[in-house]
Amino acid sequence: MSCYIGIDLGGTNIAGGIVDETGRIILSDSVPTPHDCSSDEIMESIVKLAEELVNRSDVEKTDISGIGVGCPGTVDNENGIITYCVNIPMRKVRAAEYIESRLGIRVNLENDANAAALGEYYVNGNGAKSYIFITLGTGIGGGAVLDGKIYRGFNGVGIEAGHMTLVHNGEKCTCGKRGCWERYGSVTALINQTVSAMKANPSSRMSEIAEKYGEVNGRVAFEAAGMGDKAAQAVVDRYIEYVADGITGIINIFEPELLVIGGGISKEGKRLLDPVREYVHKNEFNRYMSKTRIETASLANDAGIIGAALSCASGFRNSVV
Amino acid sequence: MSCYIGIDLGGTNIAGGIVDETGRIILSDSVPTPHDCSSDEIMESIVKLAEELVNRSDVEKTDISGIGVGCPGTVDNENGIITYCVNIPMRKVRAAEYIESRLGIRVNLENDANAAALGEYYVNGNGAKSYIFITLGTGIGGGAVLDGKIYRGFNGVGIEAGHMTLVHNGEKCTCGKRGCWERYGSVTALINQTVSAMKANPSSRMSEIAEKYGEVNGRVAFEAAGMGDKAAQAVVDRYIEYVADGITGIINIFEPELLVIGGGISKEGKRLLDPVREYVHKNEFNRYMSKTRIETASLANDAGIIGAALSCASGFRNSVV
Repeated sequence: MSCYIGIDLGGTNIAGGIVDETGRIILSDSVPTPHDCSSDEIMESIVKLAEELVNRSDVEKTDISGIGVGCPGTVDNENGIITYCVNIPMRKVRAAEYIESRLGIRVNLENDANAAALGEYYVNGNGAKSYIFITLGTGIGGGAVLDGKIYRGFNGVGIEAGHMTLVHNGEKCTCGKRGCWERYGSVTALINQTVSAMKANPSSRMSEIAEKYGEVNGRVAFEAAGMGDKAAQAVVDRYIEYVADGITGIINIFEPELLVIGGGISKEGKRLLDPVREYVHKNEFNRYMSKTRIETASLANDAGIIGAALSCASGFRNSVV
Repeated sequence: MSCYIGIDLGGTNIAGGIVDETGRIILSDSVPTPHDCSSDEIMESIVKLAEELVNRSDVEKTDISGIGVGCPGTVDNENGIITYCVNIPMRKVRAAEYIESRLGIRVNLENDANAAALGEYYVNGNGAKSYIFITLGTGIGGGAVLDGKIYRGFNGVGIEAGHMTLVHNGEKCTCGKRGCWERYGSVTALINQTVSAMKANPSSRMSEIAEKYGEVNGRVAFEAAGMGDKAAQAVVDRYIEYVADGITGIINIFEPELLVIGGGISKEGKRLLDPVREYVHKNEFNRYMSKTRIETASLANDAGIIGAALSCASGFRNSVV
């Protein structure tokens, strides 16, 4: 059976795994992402992780048909170049060439959200003809799998769903534009909204939960709301409305057979999913035809490894497999 | 050479034409859309228009490979059903079956914005791998042509770009949701914005131009702005920002090779295009890779006929041609 190596390059860790063609992880591991170093050193970490995975598994190197690397930023998939990485000092790096020359295995670079979308799709997409994956995390990432293939746009940058406008002339986003969806619907935004509500409502139970975690994180408002705290419930309600309004727009555009919500906040499950579905059902454009199914992700962090690995099956730079 | 008939079903007129496989119109005509009548009578008008076109042209009926009908609303392309039409009393009508049985030619139904997108794409798309068509009219319509094929979503309703949110909790839209892009960027919205500005600025030259036309239309603010009227320029500037903000979101999502703006307002040409391009260039997410080319449409009303005709080449209901 043909296998692939999937690498999920993150700001904190580099995760990797050997994945078979059905999307099953045979062996996985991770190493810390080196900091204050050259891009060559980061690529060496990827090479060593890949070599170790092969050495520790029963899979022969000759059975590895490709290495897919999911990168948090912009990749030039056709030319094998990491154009820009968020939080990692890699700019215009010929990463595919480098890794190929060290390992003798072909490399495909992919945006990490696109890779995660493909990973989720392979394992839980039920062969949906059109599939959208939205990750609610530090930002909002998006990936589209149409007719079984990652949709990249003509330049590899698509789809950046978090950077459609939700609030015209709203808050300034890190991308430079105002009012992007991710300024309102990301976990970062939820944390900001929670902090504001805690200041305005000092007696809210959000404070005791934040103390328990030693920080204000994305769970604080949800947990306090679950305990009946009204200020927390208001934070959750407003946050979910932001999320659901953006998802409604995405559905009105793509009308996908399946839309899956991933990222840390998706672990809230029904507490997130039920009100999102209700909002979409009430507000979506489509009134007469079959409706998009909305679910939460199931693979968590493995989606990045699996998707990066299986992205190789869609072809390598300047070639068709 | 294989030919098709394209029908553009509108609330006022039914336009039709015989189109060759390169997208050239051989002969076209239009008839008024019957009102206060059954859906059968509307379909009979389509049948008669098609018959007349064949009779008046040199094309033999046996050379017509299909009839494509573009409908303003939701069509069930796979089953040949007009599910819902805006301003035309057709609900759940088995239109493909009806027209096929009367003419003996296979029928494909298509959403009118999708058909217009395909028409523009065939004639002026330069084979773009990913192509988005946005029409600024009574509402905002959208169509996507990806890898040369109309993107319909899994249920035929995609893409309704005008119904992504631009202003969270903003003005109520006819679709039921609040803050849709078309409430701010359609010609209807521009007219409302013009009327408000005329009331607030009675000495503006917008009034004399509206008098000339006998109505406030989409040209009034643009013309007065061209004469140096400041209140009109403010209307135009704000309107273009709404349009450009929505287009930036669409580009951040699709990263299409080419995005074309159609509809009446696209006739403003550079006065619309230059500031839209400037806004997008400044605000789009993509900083490092090739940029989407933005143009105005060139076919005007013919796009609907040509696209409806050529949509047949993508296949008919429950079959692959």
